[in-house]
Amino acid sequence: MASQAVLTPRGKDFPQWFQDVVARAELAENGPARGSMVIRPWGYAIWELMQADMDRRIKATGVQNAYFPLFIPMSYLEKEAQHVEGFSPELAVVTHGGGQELAEPLVVRPTSETVINASFARWIQGYRDLPMLINQWANVVRWEMRPRIILRTSEFLWQEGHTAHATYEEAQAETMQMLEVYRAFMEETLGVAVVTGEKSPRERFAGADRTYTCEGLMGDGKALQLGTSHNLGHNFARAFDITYLSAQGTREYVATTSWGTSMRMLGGVIMVHGDDQGLRLPPAIAPHQVVLLALAEGEPARLVDKLAAELRAEGVRAHVDNRFHLSFGRRSVDWELKGVPVRIELGERELAAGQATLVRRDRRAKRPEPLDSVVRAARDLLDELQRALHEESLRFRTEHTYDASSLEELRARVGDGGFFRLAWCGSDACEEALGEGTGASIRAILSEDPVAPTCLVDGAPARCSVLVARAY
Amino acid sequence: MASQAVLTPRGKDFPQWFQDVVARAELAENGPARGSMVIRPWGYAIWELMQADMDRRIKATGVQNAYFPLFIPMSYLEKEAQHVEGFSPELAVVTHGGGQELAEPLVVRPTSETVINASFARWIQGYRDLPMLINQWANVVRWEMRPRIILRTSEFLWQEGHTAHATYEEAQAETMQMLEVYRAFMEETLGVAVVTGEKSPRERFAGADRTYTCEGLMGDGKALQLGTSHNLGHNFARAFDITYLSAQGTREYVATTSWGTSMRMLGGVIMVHGDDQGLRLPPAIAPHQVVLLALAEGEPARLVDKLAAELRAEGVRAHVDNRFHLSFGRRSVDWELKGVPVRIELGERELAAGQATLVRRDRRAKRPEPLDSVVRAARDLLDELQRALHEESLRFRTEHTYDASSLEELRARVGDGGFFRLAWCGSDACEEALGEGTGASIRAILSEDPVAPTCLVDGAPARCSVLVARAY
Repeated sequence: MASQAVLTPRGKDFPQWFQDVVARAELAENGPARGSMVIRPWGYAIWELMQADMDRRIKATGVQNAYFPLFIPMSYLEKEAQHVEGFSPELAVVTHGGGQELAEPLVVRPTSETVINASFARWIQGYRDLPMLINQWANVVRWEMRPRIILRTSEFLWQEGHTAHATYEEAQAETMQMLEVYRAFMEETLGVAVVTGEKSPRERFAGADRTYTCEGLMGDGKALQLGTSHNLGHNFARAFDITYLSAQGTREYVATTSWGTSMRMLGGVIMVHGDDQGLRLPPAIAPHQVVLLALAEGEPARLVDKLAAELRAEGVRAHVDNRFHLSFGRRSVDWELKGVPVRIELGERELAAGQATLVRRDRRAKRPEPLDSVVRAARDLLDELQRALHEESLRFRTEHTYDASSLEELRARVGDGGFFRLAWCGSDACEEALGEGTGASIRAILSEDPVAPTCLVDGAPARCSVLVARAY
Repeated sequence: MASQAVLTPRGKDFPQWFQDVVARAELAENGPARGSMVIRPWGYAIWELMQADMDRRIKATGVQNAYFPLFIPMSYLEKEAQHVEGFSPELAVVTHGGGQELAEPLVVRPTSETVINASFARWIQGYRDLPMLINQWANVVRWEMRPRIILRTSEFLWQEGHTAHATYEEAQAETMQMLEVYRAFMEETLGVAVVTGEKSPRERFAGADRTYTCEGLMGDGKALQLGTSHNLGHNFARAFDITYLSAQGTREYVATTSWGTSMRMLGGVIMVHGDDQGLRLPPAIAPHQVVLLALAEGEPARLVDKLAAELRAEGVRAHVDNRFHLSFGRRSVDWELKGVPVRIELGERELAAGQATLVRRDRRAKRPEPLDSVVRAARDLLDELQRALHEESLRFRTEHTYDASSLEELRARVGDGGFFRLAWCGSDACEEALGEGTGASIRAILSEDPVAPTCLVDGAPARCSVLVARAY
């Protein structure tokens, strides 16, 4: 197959394979400034579908979208001590505007906590204004020392939700609700199996009381953080003086949350579903769900147009590839690279037999299908493929999740990839020891019910089970 | 009416009325940095509907969305001489990133011409790659000395289309096609009558050969530029070396276009349709098309829920206002302020008579409607209102478009507002004279067929008809 030569094999050099897929599937490329990225039409169309689906799920919980400024005065960032400490090393700073040096430098938002909480302080007066549920789709900037396309760029596209509640408990419930929205989106829409859990204190968001995460296991056995949800408690409410008059007439601080997912999820989709032939897209986020190719102009091409119209009438995103100046093989390889879930191929010989060739991308399996049932078969295949990719991801995760019985075993094996379950006493020293010499870290606290009675590191009484892995 | 006191009357102080509507309809408010803006949920929901409609129209012409970096190296901007000259006074500049001073300052994009054309140079090889049709939804920054909420903020949301073509003629055809897409959107979706025409050389986009505009006439008689479409000819192709191999085997420069519309259109909607009671939204962009209010809990509230469900089943964006802790009058005034096209109000008395009250926002007209036909009546009213607002805008424009027969007449009358048609010789001196002491300018060249044989200013042979007005 010509396609064998197109990409570095996944097993040979996973990072290079990732770069190759991003380039050859025309998803994105580096921009002119260091750490910047151009998102090409195919990559952006996938993002638009992800965004629409996520937006629908977020709005279904009663959240409204709004938009807040790109530039934030430095003084705003300094209001919450942990927050500014966490973000200072990553800031891009505007010092000149309109030909003048600015009196106060403006920070390009690394996140909008500060400016949104300042708005909350104006908008929230009484208990009837609560809960206040806001989401923003925006670009943010975090200066990256080691940028990596799609996964870690200085500017990235994301959504950030920010909510305010009457009580800490309600904020906690919101934090968990949005974690579940993320989990469901990742499993159902992206077909990516994820583990959810709380982050350890050292991995917490700057300014949060509790941080929860969705962690996916990539094809090379490394973890990728795909989304986080934070209970900010009263930290930002105190910093920005966000209070409300309760039904009892007392003035109380609100409790706030924030939660975010980004373009990085596309990196997860590539690294979970991709294979040596390129991307494999779950139908839910495939810009073209079915590509139809006639081997030649004339009757096969006319029939292909007719089938495409029938597919579109049934709500399928169908695309006809009429690039007859390219070889049929080249056209097929293109759509394999780009991850289109289903292809319908039609030549003179198939036509004579009253058949088309139906190709499913995930298994690269072809079968003949009678023309009068091919539309329905393609639709069924899309449903099947959405399920199959998720099951495959789940199976891979299950097969690569291990119980570590000693620190030595963990250190010997964690470099090979996979999720390692172990018992932890909760101490910072033991958390640090887990990562020494391995580059691994606690990805999530799985449960308060430890897998073993004592901490894997120091043998102290265990407080919880954690998932340890190397991560992006 | 309580609502009389809510807003400064339009006729008394139009700019203050505009500010009042923006604040009281909860559309937007000033952000912390000078010239920045927070777009509140109601304003953003309108923008989302505008965006979805515009996006559909743009994609229907074969354009694909993509995303380009926020930060552009200063050296990129300097490649096209007129372009950098035009934008230099408006730039925001990032000089520090990640705690370090940058070797080359980064400009926060004022528009993405330069970075997109740099991509075109990589992506375009042969004639089969043309036309290349790209659109981007993004935030851009142009430092404003006199910021004005929604109309002129330093950061604003917009779409910018960028296309490359084999010939100058194809670029010109694309320029005109997108101008027509904009015109149709503004008239059909926003209900705003616009005049289209070419800009005079001094009003051209920095780097364009020809600039076309859609100009709306606001309620105070001033013009607002609502969208522009530019034929950039070979200017950017030469600056960025964008060439293609033709079918004949020769290497040729592409011809490019760009075209943009922004959040400013929302300002146009406010200033064209708004009245002394607030915003009046065309149903196509109303987040709630119908608001249903029961005067009391119990049976009226239950019936209102049922009617809302029926409306939603017919694809109407219906909202039930259950804020029974507020007076009925206060609730009605709120939705008038926010411009909701149709209200259905239901009290015990109406219920007993088997009727509801149907209210159309544009004329503030109420009528009783039997319960079993109120859903259909509301739907019909939405269609009627979409038409009526557009007709009203068209009538206002027609009634306030005048033929100026002398420079003295123009100068005496142009300050009172309205569009003035006159003949122009095409000279820069006469264009300048038209604006002297009046603040007016040529908004658009209407036709090559002048309304009078000689230029209104210097009596030289006229070359074209132009529209002159004071503008935002």
